[in-house]
Amino acid sequence: MTAQAVRTGVWFIGARGSVATTATAGCAAIAAGLHPATGMVTETPPFAGSGLPPLSSLVFGGHDTIDCPLPKRAEALAAGEVLPHGLPSAVRAELTAADAEIRIGGPLPGDTRTDEQLITAFVADLADFARRHELARTVVINVASTEPLPQEGDARLPASSLYAAAALRAGCPYVNFTPSTGLRGPALQDAFDSCALPHAGRDGKTGQTLLRSVLAPMFVQRALPVRAWSGTNLLGGGDGAALADPAAAAAKNAGKERVLADTLGTAPEGEVHIDDVPAMGDWKTAWDHIAFDGFLGSRMILQTIWQGCDSALAAPLVLDLARLMARAHEKGLSGPRPELGFYFKDPDGGPAALSEQYAALLAFGERLRGER
Amino acid sequence: MTAQAVRTGVWFIGARGSVATTATAGCAAIAAGLHPATGMVTETPPFAGSGLPPLSSLVFGGHDTIDCPLPKRAEALAAGEVLPHGLPSAVRAELTAADAEIRIGGPLPGDTRTDEQLITAFVADLADFARRHELARTVVINVASTEPLPQEGDARLPASSLYAAAALRAGCPYVNFTPSTGLRGPALQDAFDSCALPHAGRDGKTGQTLLRSVLAPMFVQRALPVRAWSGTNLLGGGDGAALADPAAAAAKNAGKERVLADTLGTAPEGEVHIDDVPAMGDWKTAWDHIAFDGFLGSRMILQTIWQGCDSALAAPLVLDLARLMARAHEKGLSGPRPELGFYFKDPDGGPAALSEQYAALLAFGERLRGER
Amino acid sequence: MTAQAVRTGVWFIGARGSVATTATAGCAAIAAGLHPATGMVTETPPFAGSGLPPLSSLVFGGHDTIDCPLPKRAEALAAGEVLPHGLPSAVRAELTAADAEIRIGGPLPGDTRTDEQLITAFVADLADFARRHELARTVVINVASTEPLPQEGDARLPASSLYAAAALRAGCPYVNFTPSTGLRGPALQDAFDSCALPHAGRDGKTGQTLLRSVLAPMFVQRALPVRAWSGTNLLGGGDGAALADPAAAAAKNAGKERVLADTLGTAPEGEVHIDDVPAMGDWKTAWDHIAFDGFLGSRMILQTIWQGCDSALAAPLVLDLARLMARAHEKGLSGPRPELGFYFKDPDGGPAALSEQYAALLAFGERLRGER
Amino acid sequence: MTAQAVRTGVWFIGARGSVATTATAGCAAIAAGLHPATGMVTETPPFAGSGLPPLSSLVFGGHDTIDCPLPKRAEALAAGEVLPHGLPSAVRAELTAADAEIRIGGPLPGDTRTDEQLITAFVADLADFARRHELARTVVINVASTEPLPQEGDARLPASSLYAAAALRAGCPYVNFTPSTGLRGPALQDAFDSCALPHAGRDGKTGQTLLRSVLAPMFVQRALPVRAWSGTNLLGGGDGAALADPAAAAAKNAGKERVLADTLGTAPEGEVHIDDVPAMGDWKTAWDHIAFDGFLGSRMILQTIWQGCDSALAAPLVLDLARLMARAHEKGLSGPRPELGFYFKDPDGGPAALSEQYAALLAFGERLRGER
Repeated sequence: MTAQAVRTGVWFIGARGSVATTATAGCAAIAAGLHPATGMVTETPPFAGSGLPPLSSLVFGGHDTIDCPLPKRAEALAAGEVLPHGLPSAVRAELTAADAEIRIGGPLPGDTRTDEQLITAFVADLADFARRHELARTVVINVASTEPLPQEGDARLPASSLYAAAALRAGCPYVNFTPSTGLRGPALQDAFDSCALPHAGRDGKTGQTLLRSVLAPMFVQRALPVRAWSGTNLLGGGDGAALADPAAAAAKNAGKERVLADTLGTAPEGEVHIDDVPAMGDWKTAWDHIAFDGFLGSRMILQTIWQGCDSALAAPLVLDLARLMARAHEKGLSGPRPELGFYFKDPDGGPAALSEQYAALLAFGERLRGER
Repeated sequence: MTAQAVRTGVWFIGARGSVATTATAGCAAIAAGLHPATGMVTETPPFAGSGLPPLSSLVFGGHDTIDCPLPKRAEALAAGEVLPHGLPSAVRAELTAADAEIRIGGPLPGDTRTDEQLITAFVADLADFARRHELARTVVINVASTEPLPQEGDARLPASSLYAAAALRAGCPYVNFTPSTGLRGPALQDAFDSCALPHAGRDGKTGQTLLRSVLAPMFVQRALPVRAWSGTNLLGGGDGAALADPAAAAAKNAGKERVLADTLGTAPEGEVHIDDVPAMGDWKTAWDHIAFDGFLGSRMILQTIWQGCDSALAAPLVLDLARLMARAHEKGLSGPRPELGFYFKDPDGGPAALSEQYAALLAFGERLRGER
Repeated sequence: MTAQAVRTGVWFIGARGSVATTATAGCAAIAAGLHPATGMVTETPPFAGSGLPPLSSLVFGGHDTIDCPLPKRAEALAAGEVLPHGLPSAVRAELTAADAEIRIGGPLPGDTRTDEQLITAFVADLADFARRHELARTVVINVASTEPLPQEGDARLPASSLYAAAALRAGCPYVNFTPSTGLRGPALQDAFDSCALPHAGRDGKTGQTLLRSVLAPMFVQRALPVRAWSGTNLLGGGDGAALADPAAAAAKNAGKERVLADTLGTAPEGEVHIDDVPAMGDWKTAWDHIAFDGFLGSRMILQTIWQGCDSALAAPLVLDLARLMARAHEKGLSGPRPELGFYFKDPDGGPAALSEQYAALLAFGERLRGER
Repeated sequence: MTAQAVRTGVWFIGARGSVATTATAGCAAIAAGLHPATGMVTETPPFAGSGLPPLSSLVFGGHDTIDCPLPKRAEALAAGEVLPHGLPSAVRAELTAADAEIRIGGPLPGDTRTDEQLITAFVADLADFARRHELARTVVINVASTEPLPQEGDARLPASSLYAAAALRAGCPYVNFTPSTGLRGPALQDAFDSCALPHAGRDGKTGQTLLRSVLAPMFVQRALPVRAWSGTNLLGGGDGAALADPAAAAAKNAGKERVLADTLGTAPEGEVHIDDVPAMGDWKTAWDHIAFDGFLGSRMILQTIWQGCDSALAAPLVLDLARLMARAHEKGLSGPRPELGFYFKDPDGGPAALSEQYAALLAFGERLRGER
């Protein structure tokens, strides 16, 4: 069996969402040479020898609770200018194949299954997927809508934790690209700490927080105290609607604020708003306003306006993580991977400044070198 | 003689300008405990043991070709909200003392002195300053208005190079905080390369370029190709008027573009404008517009708006450089100091990303440790 | 008695706040020739013959529930760069005189007086003020902090309505420059409709809404449908703290949204945030993001960033209103004055577009002409 | 013959450019009910009875010096997201028909024809077009790239004036939607003044200047003096390249500045830049920075960022003008039409504020009512 023949599964929680659809379609397009691998750090020269699985070897599947077929979902994204026109038809075969590997998730409304029954069902789906495709391994990645912050005293695990538990029980590396609980809750604390599988999280760093992770260190390094850091995000699409729920927005904002607090040493004044603006579709505008002090108390201001498409920012990072985690598993690494803080708002340790996170990522790429 | 008694000269080319006045007044205010040392990296903990001369040991003087007294200049800056109200009167004694140490520079309009005569006169001024104040050493810092780009075939040295040559001849460490030629011209190439004194330059990195030096690496690290980077700077004050001269603006812009080209690997599309807007006074607004590509060719935009006071941004850096160069001289270091790229748009080598420049600066601080 | 000798009272509810202090100090400064009448429409040529009371004839007093002396309040505003340095001392006499005319308002915490008792006390204060200064008339202007939206079923009148009722009972023209209830509640409906005195409101149009009242008509006139209009306001000072109360913010936002709904015909998507950012002091930044459709459904965006000082924007409008209402009273006009919609977010009728409101104001100036 | 059967010609100078292509394709799409008439003021209710020619009655043709077929040009615009995907194929028949009516313009490189010969040729093209299509009239509209400002002493007429002269000689109403000379030069002064045909110009007001024409009156009406008004435009496409020529940019900027000078009474400080940024394609970003004074000299700033597609902004205005001028001709109106200042940066008289221009346009619509 040649190296090329080894196949790696990528199992999305939220497999019919914008991020998963963009990642699935984009992987096919790049593998076919239709587009360059813009935004994929693992396709840059430093990772050439890291033994990562090729994009053409990835097999996609996942869980979701809605049933819009992937090819149709991709057409909707192309209409909203998230995917290039013509791409959905160019990769229709790959989308159809991935669509056939999406299983119904849970808990559904009215679902009477216990947590344990749900986990068991998810494990069975993962095992079936791996068996039928003869996969060397499957990386499970949560890209579902943000859950509300869990309430203390909840008897049930949040859905994100059910999926995370299933991943570990099925022997799959796990990535939590959302602010949802996943492995972070008290119920899974033991699994988090002592897991024999590699896992990484939490909350993909795609736009406003990415910017914050390079700007905040600048203020620190230049000894310019930040007085207030305020921000507003306008977004539509499913993400905008999900985050219109204050509990979900609170979960999202916790990660954004952590970057500032970790870097600046203390949380500055200022709030972060996430507004659902359906007219924006999948495009997002993020405005940040930073009031800082200069020499002798002079008052200065930096403002940033970031206009991007969240799915297009997230998808290449998700593909990066799938490849890096697959290779980490192959190399026998386990437990939380602080080396991947580059990708997360709320990482499992490691530095908070992007430049240091990038250095850690490069070092991780070095560590992954060697025989496949 | 105690360490405290050792005194260090700081000699400004452009000693009556906004930057020099702000640095002189600010040094006195901070030394007197009236203000925290905001913006001074050398006052942060990593430099506590680097043996830098205390702010209270600095003695100020310089050259200028205008004759507005420093206390009056400081009042004008306070009226323009560059200095805090009340500060000029609080540090009047120190401003008056520095004012008494400002000598007439050159060449003046109609000046018939040769280059050599001018250099000799400047050397004599420096020697006299050092002798009367019993200075251990004097750091010469160019903070004068930007000169026009020199024309090929000019028989005369530009003024900035006359001052630079005088500094070296007088045995003084030299810093060029402007985009002017200073030591960089062909005439002083030998002095630049083999100088027995430490020197550093060129063009202080205060605002828009500071931002560029943290944002450009972000795009590179995230594999997001920058399509176009455009910028407009609005500023009044003397700097705005000086840069309204296209030749001076060209000199200024060369440094700004170098940061992008060095970091991105190639200069992106886009221009940089510097507009003289007298109504802005000493305050500056810089707008940057960055068009970049995302996954699958999606088009994204980042805009930044920086509103600050250039003098207040420059002054703490100038004080940092005076202290670092004095200590480097004390430790016997010589030649160009790429470790100080943190401070410059167009440094004498070293990395282009701010985070790496900061690391190099910290390492330099370590190297300066030891006995005074 | 000459026209010059006629004196007009200006009675501020919230007489120690930023707006009242700025208006009082500014009126004195302009009357003394220290500053031009920037921002005062009633000092422009079209109003030269409208018979408005001269600034030098205005006598200031008011109610407040705090007790910081006006000269001290003015010094604090100068420190925050709301008033020019030196102004508080230049107009100290006028500030001290106004300070002596400020009476304690209510209801205070623990106040056991009934609504009727409070109104009676306020009427007595107004009568005493008018008598001692031999005032021809007194205009009462509410510039106090925004009240929370009244709850249905409240047995008591909100404070703003107590003051409004007192104004009418004392025979004073009344202006509500805040979003608070004032005359608008059901309890005072009869007074609102059939009042023999002129009154005007509600909620001064100083910044973001001013902009909206010129931009929204542009979209309508050009047949460009607005899809979403979102905004964030950052402000410190007392206003920021007051508006951090969601009920107060709701009152404030109702006015902002009315402008859009009235002009566009329907309220577009989008929210308005008001953030308390103490580091901003009395300065405000307002960001607006407008997504609109172009030809053939092309998606376009306009963003505006407004940076100003609310007190400095409000004060000249307040002085304008005092003069216009005094003259209207002199001419025997009564009831709500839709001609003053130029000044309000939520006016008592009239057009919503600023240009039409300006035309109505000019016509009102014409109507006020004639004998004093 | 029914009213419906009357056909009106629209003859574009620059018939293969972005604006003409967008207008031609858009007219077909709207006439076919594929899109609403967004951006067309003449399709709003006030113009319902003005007797304007229906969109379905317009017949397109024109001059150009390039030879890319219109359907192909439209496909390129769709790829750049100026036209909706699918539109070029939906209106292919109409584009092909218009393409067949495009004649080669001039002077071409190396063209030896005299001005008179060129005019004669253009008149013949217009006459042939009208005859073959049995057109009631043809409106000639210049939407070609901006010409450099003419130099004094040029013996030849600029191309825009040749086309304008041809239009008048052929009995066609004429519209100059560009900053080029057209009828405005000294050579055509008599024709301009005493023309028996209606004509209108100059320089379509699509984006930044549109905004300026509503914002500048706001500052005037509120008595807030503008200190400086600066702007930068980033644009690609053919327009960006054409305006990279400083002489063309100067022509363009003259119109932009006229709006401010006319409204504010004097031209404020500040420059306007037009940068060619090919990466922007046909999309434009315009940033404006307005420094203005508030009460007591407080310094305030408004910034605007306008992101739109110039062709999509221009096309509906061009269709409006074609219809209005055709009807004006039918009603026997002649000479310059200051009532159309709503559409132009540099109009033939009339007010400068958009709201007043809109009122004038509505009045013009009233005047056009009556029998066809």
